[in-house]
Amino acid sequence: MQAGSPSGISQALAQFIAHCHWEDIPEAIRHEARRSLLNYFAVALAGALDPTLDIAVATYGRFAASRQASLVGRPERFDMLNAAALNAMSANVYDFDDTHHPTIIHPTAPVAPALFALAQAQRMSGAELLLAFVLGVETECRLGNAVSPGHYARGWHITSTCGVFGAAMAAGKHLALPSGQLVWALGSAASQAGGLVETLGTMAKSVGVGNAARNGLLAALLAQQGFDGPAAPLEGARGFLRVTADQPDLSTVTQGLGEHWQLAANTYKPYPCGVVLNPVIDACLALAADPRLRQAGPAGIERITLTGHPLLRQRTDRPAVATGRESQVSAQHAVAVALARGRAGLAEFSDSAVRDPALCELGAKVAVREAEGYSVDAVQVRIDLRGGMQLQHSVEAARGSAARPLSDSDLEQKLRELGGAARPGWNAAPLIDALWRLEDAPDAAQVMALAA
Amino acid sequence: MQAGSPSGISQALAQFIAHCHWEDIPEAIRHEARRSLLNYFAVALAGALDPTLDIAVATYGRFAASRQASLVGRPERFDMLNAAALNAMSANVYDFDDTHHPTIIHPTAPVAPALFALAQAQRMSGAELLLAFVLGVETECRLGNAVSPGHYARGWHITSTCGVFGAAMAAGKHLALPSGQLVWALGSAASQAGGLVETLGTMAKSVGVGNAARNGLLAALLAQQGFDGPAAPLEGARGFLRVTADQPDLSTVTQGLGEHWQLAANTYKPYPCGVVLNPVIDACLALAADPRLRQAGPAGIERITLTGHPLLRQRTDRPAVATGRESQVSAQHAVAVALARGRAGLAEFSDSAVRDPALCELGAKVAVREAEGYSVDAVQVRIDLRGGMQLQHSVEAARGSAARPLSDSDLEQKLRELGGAARPGWNAAPLIDALWRLEDAPDAAQVMALAA
Repeated sequence: MQAGSPSGISQALAQFIAHCHWEDIPEAIRHEARRSLLNYFAVALAGALDPTLDIAVATYGRFAASRQASLVGRPERFDMLNAAALNAMSANVYDFDDTHHPTIIHPTAPVAPALFALAQAQRMSGAELLLAFVLGVETECRLGNAVSPGHYARGWHITSTCGVFGAAMAAGKHLALPSGQLVWALGSAASQAGGLVETLGTMAKSVGVGNAARNGLLAALLAQQGFDGPAAPLEGARGFLRVTADQPDLSTVTQGLGEHWQLAANTYKPYPCGVVLNPVIDACLALAADPRLRQAGPAGIERITLTGHPLLRQRTDRPAVATGRESQVSAQHAVAVALARGRAGLAEFSDSAVRDPALCELGAKVAVREAEGYSVDAVQVRIDLRGGMQLQHSVEAARGSAARPLSDSDLEQKLRELGGAARPGWNAAPLIDALWRLEDAPDAAQVMALAA
Repeated sequence: MQAGSPSGISQALAQFIAHCHWEDIPEAIRHEARRSLLNYFAVALAGALDPTLDIAVATYGRFAASRQASLVGRPERFDMLNAAALNAMSANVYDFDDTHHPTIIHPTAPVAPALFALAQAQRMSGAELLLAFVLGVETECRLGNAVSPGHYARGWHITSTCGVFGAAMAAGKHLALPSGQLVWALGSAASQAGGLVETLGTMAKSVGVGNAARNGLLAALLAQQGFDGPAAPLEGARGFLRVTADQPDLSTVTQGLGEHWQLAANTYKPYPCGVVLNPVIDACLALAADPRLRQAGPAGIERITLTGHPLLRQRTDRPAVATGRESQVSAQHAVAVALARGRAGLAEFSDSAVRDPALCELGAKVAVREAEGYSVDAVQVRIDLRGGMQLQHSVEAARGSAARPLSDSDLEQKLRELGGAARPGWNAAPLIDALWRLEDAPDAAQVMALAA
């Protein structure tokens, strides 16, 4: 189709997906897919233990039609639709999952769980799973590009709303649906797209993320049986793009398909908190190791001043927080915990960490200043010690940013840490190994056995 | 709460629902609830046989966790979530279900299936079901009022988007959730609200309607287990009302709660087609009985002229239609079939009726004119016969309009006809009787046994 033409977007996207082969995927993108899956299992293993999942597993457990598919990090087994939903919830519950930078979509949570669930129900090779995964991510992120930034700004939880299309196309690819049926699947996905920013910070968010994986898979299964849909579910006058964005950029859905891959813009978080806090934590962890600060101790600190991008102050200047979840967007808490404990993992952003009076006291000394010339990945942290001494640390590009991505071994370490946190004796090596070698696996479902 | 105050709408609505008793419901509204259920079983019995349901039942059937709940008009049994979804699809697949006039929501399809499914899983008396039904309809239609007309005009399928809240509050009422948990259920419903006008006329529409019933019920079950949500899922800055409407009228959600009931504005269709065609069909059925027309026959008709509200021409001036579904919004087809066959039921708006060349020929003689001073419920039909004679019939208020609602016996007849159409020998009397007496039934689920 012509670049920029608004007509036939659904058809063109479906045709691309139907005809794309593993050989068409560049090695860099294949590797990014593996990295995304490593990160997925890391965050899902952690999230699986959250109370959100306890309630969801109990409630969804009343409606398990089979034990075909397993959960990451939990012993229960479900039919593939429920397993897709619950694993997507686990992956995203802490917002510690991957981020597609242009859209802030968390791309893996809706797509990978749908595919692994399908792989447990009907044989799928590792390469087939990776190809379907790449195409699912391509779909959801391209739709996200088309509706950004107005869509999220209006209040749509973009991971959920766009994710259902990603899951539908990933599952549809594995089911080898022809392009006409892929368009039908986009239609049933469009009927099910939903999720609101208002629910962030509550369990209700997770229903929407779970639905994205579940309902995308359902849309593909329905289309396979002949369940039809409109000709232009995406670009139609009352289709997804126009209804959920005031000024969608329709051309970006198909422009450069097969040349520019969305996975190239995927990033992974080193810390379980809002991305604008990444440079702050980098700086504070460096300062925590400074012998002068160790000698002074928390009592010797008079004032801590953060200088950074306006978003840092606007989103995270939160002196008093009540819950672990709230602490994930509090500069005061992030600074205090990084300086006092020299760590910034899930335990440091938990309800119990928030109740530590020493951290409250230290956090009360933090001030956040806006300044020109800082990117969201940069910050300057200055500590005034009693007696007049000043310590200072600046970060230009935070760990996990596009300029300084987590390395492969960082991701391995993240999986080891998050997977092993509440599972003493658990050995992450077989899972890590299986994910790096997934392309050659005859049965992708075997990965799930290593993550249960 | 103060009338017109935008704050605390979710809370106020939840408190009203939590504290409302059957004794608070006026007899006229109780009776309208029974009428709505009569109409529900009529249209669901018909819709259950559509190919949309064959595919959905086969696909959803792979994920049936139990046989606790039954389907209207079909032998298969499902768990309550799947049964709620499939029965909602049956009720709405032909758009022959009830219409809340101010919003054009079809209010019963998302709510009644969720309640009957729940009643089959855990004991519910008839009066309990009716109360929960009234409150579910109250919820979805009040939200619909608040987002209308911009919401539907933008492309939201309002029956699906608002219906999920109705199902959630109906189920939550039966589960006796306190108001705080009802607000949580509104939150999980908000996470799941979706459905696009673009999908109308295709099977994909039905996934959204089914989800409204299913996911509303799920939201209530989750809330019962402590699955939390935001404080203001409806009125929050990124909540349902503001995200899905450009200028929501927040005050209408709670104004006059318990005084003005939305069921009072519910109406029922006499014919399975767009409501603007109702007066046209009334007039043509009257003309079809005219001996002068019978004598002239279709060949003796030179021209048929409809004069009515602008919407009549804008929505239904469709000379050539290809499918039964399309014929439901074609004035040409409606006129032809009513005049030629003297009937206007589901068989007259089917794929096979559309293929009848005699109807095409007759329809080609129809012209539609806009005129001032006609309501959408009114029309003038003039037939010019060859030789100069003119026949004319005017309708001021169509059957099924608010001014001329279907009578109780009309609704009984609708149930008999639609239920018996493909079920020779089926006796509707026990079901009709059980619905009129539902208030006194110790077990509401017994109705379902009469409709399987």
